[in-house]
Amino acid sequence: MSCKCIAAMSGGAPLSLHTIERRAVGNKDVKITIKYAGICHSDIHQAREEWGKGLFPMVPGHEIAGEVEAVGKDVTKFKVGDKVGVGCMVDSCRDCSSCKAGDEQYCATGAVMTYNGKSKYKHCEEYNEDGGAPTYGGYSQCVVVDENYICKIPDGMDMAGAAPLLCAGITVYSPMMYFGLKPGMKMAVAGLGGLGAMAVLIGKAMGAEAGGWGVTVLSRSESKRDEALKELKAVPWRKEVRHLDSLFCDAPPPTYLNTISALYEPQLYLGMLAKHGKMVLVGAPAEPMFLQAFQLIPGRKTISGSLIGGIRETQEMLDFCAKHGITCPHELIPADPAKVNEAYERAVKSDVKYRCGRRVAGDAWGVLGGSVLVPGDLGPF
Amino acid sequence: MSCKCIAAMSGGAPLSLHTIERRAVGNKDVKITIKYAGICHSDIHQAREEWGKGLFPMVPGHEIAGEVEAVGKDVTKFKVGDKVGVGCMVDSCRDCSSCKAGDEQYCATGAVMTYNGKSKYKHCEEYNEDGGAPTYGGYSQCVVVDENYICKIPDGMDMAGAAPLLCAGITVYSPMMYFGLKPGMKMAVAGLGGLGAMAVLIGKAMGAEAGGWGVTVLSRSESKRDEALKELKAVPWRKEVRHLDSLFCDAPPPTYLNTISALYEPQLYLGMLAKHGKMVLVGAPAEPMFLQAFQLIPGRKTISGSLIGGIRETQEMLDFCAKHGITCPHELIPADPAKVNEAYERAVKSDVKYRCGRRVAGDAWGVLGGSVLVPGDLGPF
Repeated sequence: MSCKCIAAMSGGAPLSLHTIERRAVGNKDVKITIKYAGICHSDIHQAREEWGKGLFPMVPGHEIAGEVEAVGKDVTKFKVGDKVGVGCMVDSCRDCSSCKAGDEQYCATGAVMTYNGKSKYKHCEEYNEDGGAPTYGGYSQCVVVDENYICKIPDGMDMAGAAPLLCAGITVYSPMMYFGLKPGMKMAVAGLGGLGAMAVLIGKAMGAEAGGWGVTVLSRSESKRDEALKELKAVPWRKEVRHLDSLFCDAPPPTYLNTISALYEPQLYLGMLAKHGKMVLVGAPAEPMFLQAFQLIPGRKTISGSLIGGIRETQEMLDFCAKHGITCPHELIPADPAKVNEAYERAVKSDVKYRCGRRVAGDAWGVLGGSVLVPGDLGPF
Repeated sequence: MSCKCIAAMSGGAPLSLHTIERRAVGNKDVKITIKYAGICHSDIHQAREEWGKGLFPMVPGHEIAGEVEAVGKDVTKFKVGDKVGVGCMVDSCRDCSSCKAGDEQYCATGAVMTYNGKSKYKHCEEYNEDGGAPTYGGYSQCVVVDENYICKIPDGMDMAGAAPLLCAGITVYSPMMYFGLKPGMKMAVAGLGGLGAMAVLIGKAMGAEAGGWGVTVLSRSESKRDEALKELKAVPWRKEVRHLDSLFCDAPPPTYLNTISALYEPQLYLGMLAKHGKMVLVGAPAEPMFLQAFQLIPGRKTISGSLIGGIRETQEMLDFCAKHGITCPHELIPADPAKVNEAYERAVKSDVKYRCGRRVAGDAWGVLGGSVLVPGDLGPF
């Protein structure tokens, strides 16, 4: 079926209106009317081919909140009318140790990304000899996804604020679970962008539940102090924070990136870590970092990376957020290519508070957008 | 009491004969006649002030194997005639969380190093208002140490081969325990120097006991292939080793250090790690490494550091090695300053197989030395 969307027709081209074909609803498929789609910085990196060659036309969007419109005959987990979410992945091999463990994001032969990927597995009806049909993301009216790669948005959760949880939320939730934060430890979040804001909110709730830990925000951007204090109710950074057990670095603080070297220097953060502490990288600066073995050895410190999270864990995160009244702070923008292009520019300039999104037709929307895209704006389909 | 030794009288000076004073045996002290003292590369770094300012005269040596000659009245763990070992530390605060956990090497206010340190804690009889008397290491006839910082060398274990275990052995044993190697995993050792050889021997025994894992040696030095295969009975490296769960890097392979950049590039090793794999640094190249977040994030990989091990764990390591017939491969050199200086030069040029040491008076000794120093060479005392 044809589906209107907002797409980049080539690498770095401004986004424009476009029409794609969505596959017919297969036996295990769920057709979702998209209500909101978050704009993630990685959308920009991919549309501009900053992370390597892309597949075009490209329809970005991997923070999707919507409503089930139709289900295949073998679907057991969802029914028409359910509120659902789709994150970064829409398929994986289902057979490797990672997939079997519920860590589909680490699939040995590669998860199928929600966009800029191909339906490469034979179990998918879109598989073909060229490695499958291209995938298209959430800046569109609808999407068809296998039920195993869909999460339920808990009752009563704000759909627009839920959308970004599917990427930013799980990206920070998963390492908090995996890397063993325990009561009595201290946690900090370095960088207060989209990931950082979610790390503060989820980290605070998790710490309180575990009875617990507080969260300290580390940023070189003085302008974010008030936000950390007021909007996120986090402990603001101090110039001399010491002895943190965990740091979740989503990216170097923005003002730091603007220094002459433009390099991300881990010693700044490693120096704040307590002995046996861990720094987990969830955001990836393009520039390499310098690391000295002596920054790790004397305190048995660790630097790790972490990539989103599995489907089961994403559902767990959504349920956790619902329980604690957490959604993603955001501002809405309309599903208008000009507005999305403008949002991209602002995101690059860091002129977006936490998350840039947009809101569905029929609603009033703000200027800065909480990333959701609704088909209503694109007309009837 | 006065004690003959081999000392550096100033930073970078060749070692020479010298005499120091050892403290009288206190209530909790053990006086040890030193039979063997390993020569560790860190001795060279410190004697030459390559790691910062040193205390002179400096008597290096923190891989000490000897025999108990006298004990204080409150000593309960040792008796005259016991075979004992002293490693890198001779005291610590005994009160911080690390000390209470048996991780004295991470003491919050700093463990007292066996040499190039000061007896800075008030519970030590050598404490004074200047922060305590300087400590002197194993290149000497005897040493007086609090019984809590001494390990028992298991019955039947070769004393010369046991000495280097007190540093090199525990340095590789501790992270194998701490970082969670499990049966079914794969382990590799990068760099086949003193630490690397011990990591192979201990790692193989631990893997076999756990039923288990093999150990692969990674080195750029083609000349070490036969040694890995024959002397250590390890699996030799292959040019394309992939999917290792753990790497213990004691140092960059020596030929790698000789490349133009002279930088240690962790991506070479990180690329070999399996998903969720860990690389633990136990040796510290002076040069910084370059690290990209994308080398860690997609596979949830980890880089950590690890520093020697606690006293209880050192005893556990000695008992483990005795059980498995492991001692440190070494070659002996006499306790002659000229020979020690020569050994230093050869160690710097990597012309030493595994461990450079020396052997006591009365014995024949080889040219390349297994690091032990015996007071017999220094005359009666």
